Amino acid sequence: MLIVMKHGASEEEVRQVIDTIEDMGYEARPIPGRQRTAIGLIGNDGKVDSSRLVGLAGVLEVIPVTQPYKQVSREWKDEPTIIVLANGTKIGDNEVAVMAGPCAVESEEQILGISRYLRGAGATVLRGGAFKPRTSPYAFQGLGVRGLELLARAREETGLAVVTEALDPESVDVVAEYADMIQIGARNMQNYSLLRKAGASGKPVLLKRGMAATITELLLAAEYLLAEGNDQVVLCERGVRSFDTYTRNLLDLTAIPVVHALSHLPIIADPSHGTGIRAKVTPMARAAIAAGADGIIVEVHPDPDHALSDGGQSLYPDQFKELMDQIAVIASAIGRRLVSPLVPQNVG
Amino acid sequence: MLIVMKHGASEEEVRQVIDTIEDMGYEARPIPGRQRTAIGLIGNDGKVDSSRLVGLAGVLEVIPVTQPYKQVSREWKDEPTIIVLANGTKIGDNEVAVMAGPCAVESEEQILGISRYLRGAGATVLRGGAFKPRTSPYAFQGLGVRGLELLARAREETGLAVVTEALDPESVDVVAEYADMIQIGARNMQNYSLLRKAGASGKPVLLKRGMAATITELLLAAEYLLAEGNDQVVLCERGVRSFDTYTRNLLDLTAIPVVHALSHLPIIADPSHGTGIRAKVTPMARAAIAAGADGIIVEVHPDPDHALSDGGQSLYPDQFKELMDQIAVIASAIGRRLVSPLVPQNVG
Amino acid sequence: MLIVMKHGASEEEVRQVIDTIEDMGYEARPIPGRQRTAIGLIGNDGKVDSSRLVGLAGVLEVIPVTQPYKQVSREWKDEPTIIVLANGTKIGDNEVAVMAGPCAVESEEQILGISRYLRGAGATVLRGGAFKPRTSPYAFQGLGVRGLELLARAREETGLAVVTEALDPESVDVVAEYADMIQIGARNMQNYSLLRKAGASGKPVLLKRGMAATITELLLAAEYLLAEGNDQVVLCERGVRSFDTYTRNLLDLTAIPVVHALSHLPIIADPSHGTGIRAKVTPMARAAIAAGADGIIVEVHPDPDHALSDGGQSLYPDQFKELMDQIAVIASAIGRRLVSPLVPQNVG
Amino acid sequence: MLIVMKHGASEEEVRQVIDTIEDMGYEARPIPGRQRTAIGLIGNDGKVDSSRLVGLAGVLEVIPVTQPYKQVSREWKDEPTIIVLANGTKIGDNEVAVMAGPCAVESEEQILGISRYLRGAGATVLRGGAFKPRTSPYAFQGLGVRGLELLARAREETGLAVVTEALDPESVDVVAEYADMIQIGARNMQNYSLLRKAGASGKPVLLKRGMAATITELLLAAEYLLAEGNDQVVLCERGVRSFDTYTRNLLDLTAIPVVHALSHLPIIADPSHGTGIRAKVTPMARAAIAAGADGIIVEVHPDPDHALSDGGQSLYPDQFKELMDQIAVIASAIGRRLVSPLVPQNVG
Repeated sequence: MLIVMKHGASEEEVRQVIDTIEDMGYEARPIPGRQRTAIGLIGNDGKVDSSRLVGLAGVLEVIPVTQPYKQVSREWKDEPTIIVLANGTKIGDNEVAVMAGPCAVESEEQILGISRYLRGAGATVLRGGAFKPRTSPYAFQGLGVRGLELLARAREETGLAVVTEALDPESVDVVAEYADMIQIGARNMQNYSLLRKAGASGKPVLLKRGMAATITELLLAAEYLLAEGNDQVVLCERGVRSFDTYTRNLLDLTAIPVVHALSHLPIIADPSHGTGIRAKVTPMARAAIAAGADGIIVEVHPDPDHALSDGGQSLYPDQFKELMDQIAVIASAIGRRLVSPLVPQNVG
Repeated sequence: MLIVMKHGASEEEVRQVIDTIEDMGYEARPIPGRQRTAIGLIGNDGKVDSSRLVGLAGVLEVIPVTQPYKQVSREWKDEPTIIVLANGTKIGDNEVAVMAGPCAVESEEQILGISRYLRGAGATVLRGGAFKPRTSPYAFQGLGVRGLELLARAREETGLAVVTEALDPESVDVVAEYADMIQIGARNMQNYSLLRKAGASGKPVLLKRGMAATITELLLAAEYLLAEGNDQVVLCERGVRSFDTYTRNLLDLTAIPVVHALSHLPIIADPSHGTGIRAKVTPMARAAIAAGADGIIVEVHPDPDHALSDGGQSLYPDQFKELMDQIAVIASAIGRRLVSPLVPQNVG
Repeated sequence: MLIVMKHGASEEEVRQVIDTIEDMGYEARPIPGRQRTAIGLIGNDGKVDSSRLVGLAGVLEVIPVTQPYKQVSREWKDEPTIIVLANGTKIGDNEVAVMAGPCAVESEEQILGISRYLRGAGATVLRGGAFKPRTSPYAFQGLGVRGLELLARAREETGLAVVTEALDPESVDVVAEYADMIQIGARNMQNYSLLRKAGASGKPVLLKRGMAATITELLLAAEYLLAEGNDQVVLCERGVRSFDTYTRNLLDLTAIPVVHALSHLPIIADPSHGTGIRAKVTPMARAAIAAGADGIIVEVHPDPDHALSDGGQSLYPDQFKELMDQIAVIASAIGRRLVSPLVPQNVG
Repeated sequence: MLIVMKHGASEEEVRQVIDTIEDMGYEARPIPGRQRTAIGLIGNDGKVDSSRLVGLAGVLEVIPVTQPYKQVSREWKDEPTIIVLANGTKIGDNEVAVMAGPCAVESEEQILGISRYLRGAGATVLRGGAFKPRTSPYAFQGLGVRGLELLARAREETGLAVVTEALDPESVDVVAEYADMIQIGARNMQNYSLLRKAGASGKPVLLKRGMAATITELLLAAEYLLAEGNDQVVLCERGVRSFDTYTRNLLDLTAIPVVHALSHLPIIADPSHGTGIRAKVTPMARAAIAAGADGIIVEVHPDPDHALSDGGQSLYPDQFKELMDQIAVIASAIGRRLVSPLVPQNVG
């Protein structure tokens, strides 16, 4: 941590900063400059509360140098973490994982039908909401446990692994019972009770970036999971808030190489929520793979025009098939390949 | 809701939109224009899923006309809602309420000392965190139930009402037992399980705006509370994410008159988190009152230089006293006045 | 345009809106709804000043339905516009154009050396700043006309077309004299005098999106060029302002399919300024092509470690070569191909 | 400047950074830490091109410590700069200046009528656009030189000082001839040719913050003016881009105390463009004064319902009068007062 003093800071002010640092149990190292003095704080264990320093007289700025996260960082562990789902799908490896399915589980017919289709098209992970977080209290909130049962039925029949969202600490157990991977939604990225519970479940976790979360905050949220002893964490870029209204969110694909440089955890992209418009999903899914994403999670519905939620951003089945063909080529352009489709023996 | 068709949309495409609207149970009213046709959806009950329409061929844009919230709106209830805390403090009335206290409860000495001071300076509500949401899992997380007990002690001795945060559905009961008002923090604005539990508690709720929440989303989050039958809700502007790094957040004071026009609920401002820097707290607290806020919530610490959290944004006690003098005059300039200080008989 | 009335708007207030619309010379069409009345304004010629309506009593919101731009829109001209540079490079066609070169022209040796290299690697357009807009008045401002002469020398020897920036109306003529395409920088996107002068020059124009420009504003800026009778306009996404500080800007690749849907003009991406970090340029250049960009403009410097400006975001020559190989495959995945490299007879 | 190395950076990588710093003509001072090494660059004269360092192997981050601006900073000049207009209005002093008038000059009757009214209500500076920057090329662009003549007529009759916008370097001379203060609009904040010309004119300049400009960039734009030898510069906060759509911009009032801490230049606020809605102008004007602004610039129109531009954000004359009464009290609450109204002898 670097404490930058104002130009005219007095020696006494500099002294007080040094004393405060030492009082906090760290070492202070003054660095005189041409325009101003800066003071390095040495020995930062990631627990320094900078707000105590920022308020001192003569202080212009406090600049963190140590990253506030630990176990998620490349410096903690250099080789990439690979998450392996129950059906063998690897995330974080040289292969690109494709997770697909409807926004919400609506009925047995819907989820079984689309699961068979998706498996045929090469996906290996099924997504689908049983518990749905909705901005309005009056909107469809999902089938709940019945939805989880249907997802498990689909897995049994097709061999697809299942990822689905847990909305609160209470529902983590039941989601963990049915799913292969627990999703933490964007609105809950900083719901620390939920993070702790999901971390403690031991199940792989898919952690979505919050709508206004910095990359540092995303990594700190993941740190909550790793701090529970669970490193089976996949990050997911799904769009951030911005000022343009043509798309629902602004998909920040640069976050993919940025996260890869900072962390050993894999990162995938969600072009469906990241754009909110069907016609933009395919180009942005392709772009995510080209940017180096370890996978995509994409909404596909057997009949988007009659979906109970998010129909307008769901791909038609044949659009998904075409997308799979395109991303196979794009993956090859950068020395990767799609996860191999499931063969009969994978299927339970 | 208005469905705007593309310029060259065919009659068949227009027909399909009309059929879909009717299939959804609403009435469709085409409005031909010079450049394009638009189709009004009549009878919107707030449950229309626009995503089904946005994906149809020939559709350029779907524009919501009906507001998605109900009970929080001025149209539902025109006269302002007034929240009355146990010690008589009114929020939403012509008086301006001042809530003050340290970021976190640290010790009996700290909380009792500052409470006495605050009461003497004219505050009527004590803030102080017992459960602290922290971006890093390694930071100080609050004293928990012990903190709640200390807050209750301070209330007993000073008569100040107590507002403190509940972090998850589990802790709502215990917070409701000790506090006069339950705070929902910015990170939890869309934690729907927590909102439902807090709503059902029947206690007044202080709901903070999320860092990237639109005003519509803030009102929809409040709608979750009112949908549980609890209209004792105070909204709080505390800064949104923006691109400039001089302050931690960008305090959006225009949200105050905007919310007052849309909703009957009162709204206060938090200049401490809204700026993150002590020297900016006083000017922005004054500005909030001048903009018409129904109150402020502000961090004051007996010894900010040794605070366990957020010391750099806490006012020194004498700065708080000076602020009280200034805002009393500003309130008078717009025909309001500060909540009367507690007199002995208020004190338990 | 749709004028949405408040729920309790009186008949008189509705009447005043209708009268105002008619007074402005348009037709008003009331649309009663369950919750509120809306009033359609028919006959909008793109010149309606909505601010007159937004201030009327009883008005909740004024929603534009007609797009404010004309000649740039797909509705005005459906088939894509193809820009052809002097050396035959087509932009907006099925081919993907690659523009490359240093941030600034520094010396004859530098620009000739890198130009030969770029041509060998398959680029067909040379970029390089002669006039540099700098945030600080004390930074290197470019070689000026001497830089233009060196760019022309490089074109003569290699056959590459030249694109370079004009900073103000005064310099448009001299830039037009030397360059094949005039660049308007992001800071100048709404410098209307400059836009008019560049439009009137008749030369192809590369128009960069402003750092906080909506897509509508980008298209309106382009409309200034087309309004001067010049439709040889290429748009460029180069990153927008956002809250995360890991990259200099947030590259909004979704703008590519959005612009393609709204406008007939081609759009390319600038991953160098869009990220500001060398290691992110290659992934984001690939992603842009995968998203459907009509080209990229990328900084390459023979010796980035000694560049006079932006060295840290410039690719090393061999990185550029590798990028060319990757994007050739990606383009093929979506049915496109790179612009053919220049053959001897192209070279002057 | 501080160069932060990655955790595992080799000695050779550290060596290369040191060599590069020395090669650039500065001194390097390594600061070993527990987690990583940082290297201080000593002797920064504000011209260091950090991009050369950011791209070196082993570098995690480059952190600027020296501020990039000079003459605008408090460190350069501690006492506040006071701008004095021709009619004696001081800006930056203990008094609060009020600038008011219509968005655009429309006719002699309009501008003379409103000027008399404004003077009577206590304003001392008249605003009004003669050259209007419009997002659309088809919107009303102002009366041009005829508008300037009418502004001068109004000054003659009322004694109000005149501030009006120059759109491009060409029009600076004619604006300087007629106006007492040259306005640089938000879209032109980084139009460097215009800044240089306005700086060289010697006239006071009102510089508006760009819609996505950081405070550092605003100060750097002002530095262009001071670098021309002109320190008669008033800054203006007028709202930045954000994600909420209820207001046109997000008025960043915290910028006021932030600028006051960093710079000796005065700063005023524009609540009309900062909100875009008449009903929000008064509360935000009051809030600006409460936050410590050195003045406000506000749109008032004799007949907003028939204004040629921005009618919906213009105050009615009697609203302006009420605002003046309120801000007089608010100014007194913080030890300031409104600029004294013009008395007959001020009037030419």
